[in-house]
Amino acid sequence: MSSFSIATSGEVLELLRDDLAAVEQEFTVQSQSPVRVVTDIAEYLIAGGGKRIRPLLLLLAAKALGCKDEARIRLGAVVEMLHTATLVHDDIIDEASTRRGKPSSNTTWGNSKCVLAGDWLYMQSFRTALEERNFRMLDLLISLTQEMVEGELLQMEKLGHLINEEEYFDLIYRKTASLFKVSMQLGAVVAYPPSEGMLPYEEALGEYGRNLGLAFQIVDDVLDLTAQDVILGKPAASDLREGKATLAVIHALERGTGADREAIRTVMEDRGFDRIRHSHILEILRRHGSLAYAMDTAQAYAEAARQSIAELPETEFKRALMWVPGFVTSRDR
Amino acid sequence: MSSFSIATSGEVLELLRDDLAAVEQEFTVQSQSPVRVVTDIAEYLIAGGGKRIRPLLLLLAAKALGCKDEARIRLGAVVEMLHTATLVHDDIIDEASTRRGKPSSNTTWGNSKCVLAGDWLYMQSFRTALEERNFRMLDLLISLTQEMVEGELLQMEKLGHLINEEEYFDLIYRKTASLFKVSMQLGAVVAYPPSEGMLPYEEALGEYGRNLGLAFQIVDDVLDLTAQDVILGKPAASDLREGKATLAVIHALERGTGADREAIRTVMEDRGFDRIRHSHILEILRRHGSLAYAMDTAQAYAEAARQSIAELPETEFKRALMWVPGFVTSRDR
Repeated sequence: MSSFSIATSGEVLELLRDDLAAVEQEFTVQSQSPVRVVTDIAEYLIAGGGKRIRPLLLLLAAKALGCKDEARIRLGAVVEMLHTATLVHDDIIDEASTRRGKPSSNTTWGNSKCVLAGDWLYMQSFRTALEERNFRMLDLLISLTQEMVEGELLQMEKLGHLINEEEYFDLIYRKTASLFKVSMQLGAVVAYPPSEGMLPYEEALGEYGRNLGLAFQIVDDVLDLTAQDVILGKPAASDLREGKATLAVIHALERGTGADREAIRTVMEDRGFDRIRHSHILEILRRHGSLAYAMDTAQAYAEAARQSIAELPETEFKRALMWVPGFVTSRDR
Repeated sequence: MSSFSIATSGEVLELLRDDLAAVEQEFTVQSQSPVRVVTDIAEYLIAGGGKRIRPLLLLLAAKALGCKDEARIRLGAVVEMLHTATLVHDDIIDEASTRRGKPSSNTTWGNSKCVLAGDWLYMQSFRTALEERNFRMLDLLISLTQEMVEGELLQMEKLGHLINEEEYFDLIYRKTASLFKVSMQLGAVVAYPPSEGMLPYEEALGEYGRNLGLAFQIVDDVLDLTAQDVILGKPAASDLREGKATLAVIHALERGTGADREAIRTVMEDRGFDRIRHSHILEILRRHGSLAYAMDTAQAYAEAARQSIAELPETEFKRALMWVPGFVTSRDR
């Protein structure tokens, strides 16, 4: 079996079936609060689904290193809960009305309760991690959270402004790739006894997570531009409506005619498609090959992710990790 | 020198002069973020002052146990930063327009940035504490933060409703006394080598903090009812305006005539003094001795705080801790 033979989705889900079910159960247990409204909001978000890709990465990384410790289940729930906490606060900031096709939590409970529910979810994820009595886990989780929060603030500062590719990559690293990276690193941390230093394969797994996260977010941003509302579960081109320039848009801005740039700027200023139609923006992006450019870039990061773990021992879990980048770049929602 | 001889404010500030200056310096250093707006908000809040009572308690507790470790300075900054983080989120929730007589941070920067700035301050305080490599510190800080967040959510659920004394004490414990308690416990934790168990005098110091915190918040709530806007730096009786019943009000509701209860309920429902004047509410509270009852209760908790540390070795720091409760209950702002 060569290191580049690719698994199938059925094989991957079968490999992790018991672990993913255990993470789901653990996530529910951890969401119980003595304060009713916290549990309500947490249960609403759990029921809302989500791809659980962060726990999946952590589990594959841990098992690729032979981890049998139950801590992998608890940590899987921790990274999903941390992700959920960021979503709750982000929805307040973006004034989002929907999330995954359902009313967002801030719409249902109001901003004030969601500020506090987000705080609670952060604390609960740290508290669960703290019980593992491993400082490196806490270093990774707390530094990560601070990076993500700084990323959201940077994004706010840049709303409505044209940004360059470097700024875009910094933002999507903070928004998505940093948590993918840490999920993979935690897989290594949980596979070995506590240690203050870098662990075997930790750097490679972290690089995989970073590359995969960048690919994932680039695809997400392309889908936001191209997919129908009904498939996405939120209004199409919501990034542009919110004044956020993503990779294809940055590409078109750099290559477009004066009129093209003006059309894109108008949508970002208007925060909507009142003067310029969505189809006109798509035509500009297609004419300059900007959507293809973004997808090609995502493919390159997906390939880089696979390359990052070339040295990992050959196991079925490595095979599964080889499959994930293709899944991430070929999804339609 | 008997254990009940009381220090003077000059003596206490002289005792801690260098330590408090070092905490102030450390707090400024810790507030530096690569994202400008975080540093701006943090510096604004630092300049806004505050009594720094939480670091003061931590320092006195540590030094009463002979602590010479510089970690006490870092932890002093941590508890003040954690307190600041809660203020940033609370001001969003209360839709506060002023804080300590100046525009609140949410008024200046908007809710979205303040959600994230509060998150950042939480993470920075945990990150600083994490550098001490002491799990007990983290247990105390993270459990505490979760208790405080739950307390704010409970308070929201009870806004506009009449609550009883038990509910009031639970709320003020979570809002204020829990952080006073943990600040005192951290003084013990920082005074000894890392340990997973309860430390010598830790329970007594924690009890002191809890009692002092209850006294502090009861006095705060009385001042909110009685003090002039100009002294308080916020509108008088803002608790009642926000639908919050505090100890004197609960006392009057239990003893007042039907007309008295109706007047108080009207203000809480109206969220203002449009139909019932502030002076009328004060008259009701005075007629039933409700303000005196609340102040007597605060005095009793202040005395309980002093009793909690009776067994502490006789030092000038114990003398200072004996002075604090009297200072807290006799302040006018």
